[in-house]
Amino acid sequence: MTSAEATVSAYWAALEARDWVAFGRLLADDVVYHLPQTRERVVGRESLLRFNQEYADGWHLTVTRAVASGRHAACWITCALGGEVLSAASFLDLDEAGLVREVTEFWPEPYEPPPGREHLVERY
Amino acid sequence: MTSAEATVSAYWAALEARDWVAFGRLLADDVVYHLPQTRERVVGRESLLRFNQEYADGWHLTVTRAVASGRHAACWITCALGGEVLSAASFLDLDEAGLVREVTEFWPEPYEPPPGREHLVERY
Repeated sequence: MTSAEATVSAYWAALEARDWVAFGRLLADDVVYHLPQTRERVVGRESLLRFNQEYADGWHLTVTRAVASGRHAACWITCALGGEVLSAASFLDLDEAGLVREVTEFWPEPYEPPPGREHLVERY
Repeated sequence: MTSAEATVSAYWAALEARDWVAFGRLLADDVVYHLPQTRERVVGRESLLRFNQEYADGWHLTVTRAVASGRHAACWITCALGGEVLSAASFLDLDEAGLVREVTEFWPEPYEPPPGREHLVERY
């Protein structure tokens, strides 16, 4: 396991455990969390901790795929909330100290496929 | 550059160039392309080639981030279409021959942020 792999593994484990001390220790002071779909940005460790602490609870996440190399990682997260299952894609960059410095996260939602490609696809 | 990095770099370059010969050479015979948001799946090299060939043209993609390790890669793609810019997150797995065997791709769309977190976020 690379250092970045271990860090992102600990990052998701701390979030799932709501272990805010462990989570905070993985973040750079000047961490920036980007949500491009809503054009929102959370700047700084304290704000990102509060953003997660104040978020409505009840969700459980599992890491479906994590790929890491050097200071970069990308994770496909599966998040269960009530009866719903959402996927997220999260791109994480570490700083030179190995702390999480940038996170860009996408929360794609289900939609109906456009017509015209039924002959090439299966539905599941 | 790892082998997976070189393969996914060539994969996006071939798509952007509409170089279907080069693109097809990178795919395993039994490649499967998953679109979890629409629960669509394209199975096999010929179908995936046609899926891309028949897709409405005019888009241009750039690789914003690629992370690769072993047989796994994850890419954050920026796709310009008309005046619009979309992001995609693509998780690729290679087979033992280094060919693309599984692709799971997300196309997240913009949405309005939920209320209640304005004190923690900046908008951009």
